[in-house]
Amino acid sequence: MSWFRPWQPLEEREGETMGISGEQVQQWDREHVFHSWSAQDQISPLAVAQADGAIFSDYQGKEYIDFSSQLVYTNLGHQHPRLVAAVQQQAEKLATIAPAFANDARSELAYLLSEIAPDGLDYVFFTNGGADANEYAIRMAREYTGRTKVLSMYRSYHGATGSMIHITGDPRRWDNEKSTGDSFHGHHFFGPYLYRSAFWATTPEEEAERALAHVERQIQLEGPDTIAAIIVESVVGTNGILVPPPGYLAGLRKLCDRYGICYIADEVMAGFGRTGQWFGFQHFDVEPDLITFAKGVNSGYVPLGGVIMRREIRDTFAHRPFPGGLTYSGHPLACAVGVESIKVFRDEDILGRVQDLGDRIVRPALEEMMNRHSIIGDVRGLGMFWAVELVWDKETKEPLVPFIPQPEQLQPMKDLMAACVERGVWPLMVSNRFHLTPPLTIQEDELRTGLERFDAALSTFNSAAYRRA
Amino acid sequence: MSWFRPWQPLEEREGETMGISGEQVQQWDREHVFHSWSAQDQISPLAVAQADGAIFSDYQGKEYIDFSSQLVYTNLGHQHPRLVAAVQQQAEKLATIAPAFANDARSELAYLLSEIAPDGLDYVFFTNGGADANEYAIRMAREYTGRTKVLSMYRSYHGATGSMIHITGDPRRWDNEKSTGDSFHGHHFFGPYLYRSAFWATTPEEEAERALAHVERQIQLEGPDTIAAIIVESVVGTNGILVPPPGYLAGLRKLCDRYGICYIADEVMAGFGRTGQWFGFQHFDVEPDLITFAKGVNSGYVPLGGVIMRREIRDTFAHRPFPGGLTYSGHPLACAVGVESIKVFRDEDILGRVQDLGDRIVRPALEEMMNRHSIIGDVRGLGMFWAVELVWDKETKEPLVPFIPQPEQLQPMKDLMAACVERGVWPLMVSNRFHLTPPLTIQEDELRTGLERFDAALSTFNSAAYRRA
Repeated sequence: MSWFRPWQPLEEREGETMGISGEQVQQWDREHVFHSWSAQDQISPLAVAQADGAIFSDYQGKEYIDFSSQLVYTNLGHQHPRLVAAVQQQAEKLATIAPAFANDARSELAYLLSEIAPDGLDYVFFTNGGADANEYAIRMAREYTGRTKVLSMYRSYHGATGSMIHITGDPRRWDNEKSTGDSFHGHHFFGPYLYRSAFWATTPEEEAERALAHVERQIQLEGPDTIAAIIVESVVGTNGILVPPPGYLAGLRKLCDRYGICYIADEVMAGFGRTGQWFGFQHFDVEPDLITFAKGVNSGYVPLGGVIMRREIRDTFAHRPFPGGLTYSGHPLACAVGVESIKVFRDEDILGRVQDLGDRIVRPALEEMMNRHSIIGDVRGLGMFWAVELVWDKETKEPLVPFIPQPEQLQPMKDLMAACVERGVWPLMVSNRFHLTPPLTIQEDELRTGLERFDAALSTFNSAAYRRA
Repeated sequence: MSWFRPWQPLEEREGETMGISGEQVQQWDREHVFHSWSAQDQISPLAVAQADGAIFSDYQGKEYIDFSSQLVYTNLGHQHPRLVAAVQQQAEKLATIAPAFANDARSELAYLLSEIAPDGLDYVFFTNGGADANEYAIRMAREYTGRTKVLSMYRSYHGATGSMIHITGDPRRWDNEKSTGDSFHGHHFFGPYLYRSAFWATTPEEEAERALAHVERQIQLEGPDTIAAIIVESVVGTNGILVPPPGYLAGLRKLCDRYGICYIADEVMAGFGRTGQWFGFQHFDVEPDLITFAKGVNSGYVPLGGVIMRREIRDTFAHRPFPGGLTYSGHPLACAVGVESIKVFRDEDILGRVQDLGDRIVRPALEEMMNRHSIIGDVRGLGMFWAVELVWDKETKEPLVPFIPQPEQLQPMKDLMAACVERGVWPLMVSNRFHLTPPLTIQEDELRTGLERFDAALSTFNSAAYRRA
């Protein structure tokens, strides 16, 4: 791969397009960039200068171990040489072509995806990201079933477009409901979450059984013939890394069969090796009707999402047009990185690696930490997909941040996050949890160091410093 | 730019990631790719092997002059060396980083966009494409005004996500309305279209005046205090390349001011030089409150869209979080191409070039053709943005394809499209129109040749070959 220029430090790049200073980056960011999910005057985004593998660094040269994979998407790490080369080669060959044409990168990725998906899920519709992947999967389910309603979990995130934000179960939908009064025919049910069971269950078996009884009751009361789809993250991501108990997804599959409902597996965050399998549902011996993906499919080097669908659903649109589409569907640059990414997964046995690191290093380390730290109420996850749930008291399980917090109630988590950042590890902070979701390619020593830094950050916690309501 | 490898024909690339044959591309496409807006068994997508400037070619080496700019987005043409280099350099430096960080490419593009936008439109929220750009602009308008409804034109296209398809005015929304029963609080009005006036007008002045009276009546009857935004394409694109008559957009601006409604200019297709200005509205001496963009911003080399907003709208979210966001917001790879694209526009005076070619070559050529061809009812456009509207009869204006066609009624247009393709020119076929929207960088001789081929294709038309209802 000698033909692409190796990385050079920024100071040697003057006069190039991007050779602007860290101060300028920050100034223009504050003066011109509007940020997602933020109160614009209350943020101070770190300017990232470069990144490599599981490390990113700022303009002062300070390095951070990336325990977030950004937003859980750089599955093969930053600047993977083979993915960078794939971008560069495809850019040189054919950067883009409209969706109406056939194209080699798009064809090959569709072929590879149908290969890793269960038999019968043979067709791929490409989108720009996860939200529109879910939108189009729902549209397909509606057209296929002739029904309208969609059931999803309260603790779920399925995207933030005008429709998906209503399918999303978490509080981020509330403001949008106020301004539109629109539910996009979404209805929410409780999923399994044994640590805070909505079903008064005490064992995983009981949680699974009761959660299934609950959702079946809801199906019956909503009216089975009105429900087009049930959409679930195979492992709930942003809302807590909730690994379903044994039997739950299989039971959901049976309910979908019983009532003629499409089962949509949202694999946007859980897919592509995050859990140690191609898809999260593969841990649970079930097969959905539609799979949605984004993020890990190409580590987000180029925006890409999509839907893998059963042949029968595709055939609904054999002789009548599918009522949907988008300009960048099957974008060659994005697909080329997807193709190369799947090859890297195979060549480097990424799935085996993730299972091994998760079981051998992360799980024991976090369980050991839980024993030592009074604020760790629960640790859960699999592969490279872990949540550490923090509480004031292990008995009462009172969360370190209430579900609907006042701004000042966020302080304990903010202080812990600052302690992580100071020590050079960057987890995801969500409500009263830290999510630890490193790149799947993280080196073993980086993983251990990151866990040590996280441990040290938790040790700074002093409950006496906070006045609680 | 010697460091990136020059283009090589496919046969010399064996063993590379993408070195699959044209037959394989086509086979995998048919077996695994689900296409936008299509009846999947009734399409046979051309496999495109390579592209350069205004030319793309198939695996048999046949070349086509691209009069479509794909879906009106490759504004700087295929494989522009500076845009390809921008992709490659940014890929090598930092392919991606999460939206929560600051990043040089993102900061610089936001700065440049705020520079070309009118004063006061200083902040940019980045999305993946045009549909979500419009979604987020509407969300901002709703949060800013505290109102819900959105008014848009019947003849309009604003994207196909679950919400935008309801704001879109054209028939593509119907199937989605059937399956969701959902209007996302969209309400449609008639815009100016003098050739088929909805207001019994006979001059541009009359059309503008009556179209404004019509929309004001509709605002009053919907209830001004319930309307968050009016969204209009500055020049209506897919629905007919309808250039607004003088005074119309300025009048719309006044109505928005009078009733406290946000004016959203959808510049997804019209923006970035397509009309010979940065933004289409700049022909009409108006300033919107929100501008949405995608496509031409970086010629679609990497998926990118966004919203440029007034400072007051941004300030709505100074101290409370904006309820929306997406993983790839401000994607560095996409933004780097946007930065370089704006520099190319400036260095090569693309805007001046477009105005010149449009006025000097395209307009006279099409007007001359209209005189000769009995089926050309109207030609209209500006810059590199032209529609040729075909009719059975210039007097009755009966469209060559009815507005709601039976499949067999599409045959005359399909035959004309085939005649174009056979002659090596590729326009966009939409209803009873051809849209001629070449790359802004097309060479003068290519432009002339393409127009000659289009002319020759129209000359094959034999009205006696079709039995009309």
